Amino acid sequence: MNDVINIFKNIPDHIPEELFQEILQTENFKVERIVSGGHSSPYNEWYDQEENEWVILLKGSAELLFEEHEKVVVLGPGDYINIPSHTKHRVEWTDPDTETVWLAVYYKGVK
Amino acid sequence: MNDVINIFKNIPDHIPEELFQEILQTENFKVERIVSGGHSSPYNEWYDQEENEWVILLKGSAELLFEEHEKVVVLGPGDYINIPSHTKHRVEWTDPDTETVWLAVYYKGVK
Repeated sequence: MNDVINIFKNIPDHIPEELFQEILQTENFKVERIVSGGHSSPYNEWYDQEENEWVILLKGSAELLFEEHEKVVVLGPGDYINIPSHTKHRVEWTDPDTETVWLAVYYKGVK
Repeated sequence: MNDVINIFKNIPDHIPEELFQEILQTENFKVERIVSGGHSSPYNEWYDQEENEWVILLKGSAELLFEEHEKVVVLGPGDYINIPSHTKHRVEWTDPDTETVWLAVYYKGVK
């Protein structure tokens, strides 16, 4: 119940695909750890999510591309962004030299 | 809408009291940044919260004390813990030499 877990630990040595791991889930929202190891979204594929996503990058670095205005957003440690549902975006780049660790909160309703 | 904010920036030079700042709020949960600068909870005062709290320490270090069994939990960067509602606890210590930055998710319902 009061166990302490470290978000930077227990990362597999080899991450063939981006890793999504549930940390906390209720009927209203979900918290996940995402680990990227140089991954990016498949060419021309966009996330188009039913839920809003608030995401903070905790380690590494990344570039998100938003379809609207083809806006690129560069993220480093501590940077967070809120992505309303159905805001088409993709992970354009993540640092190939280290793990990129994200904490994401997916939620329904008005932000 | 897609603004990037860094959780480690815009911290006041002087923090007379622990700082609680809302990042995201819906009717079901709330995300806050907490900044401690060597603060601890007042002597013999306990947090006894209506809501559950999931909290991750992002910078600095801290000790939480849980009333039950007088359990002490030491937290460093990346450590997270889930604190169910009405679990009496206090912040026993935070690093006096740097800011301690936390991200807390307060939520209702079953974890």
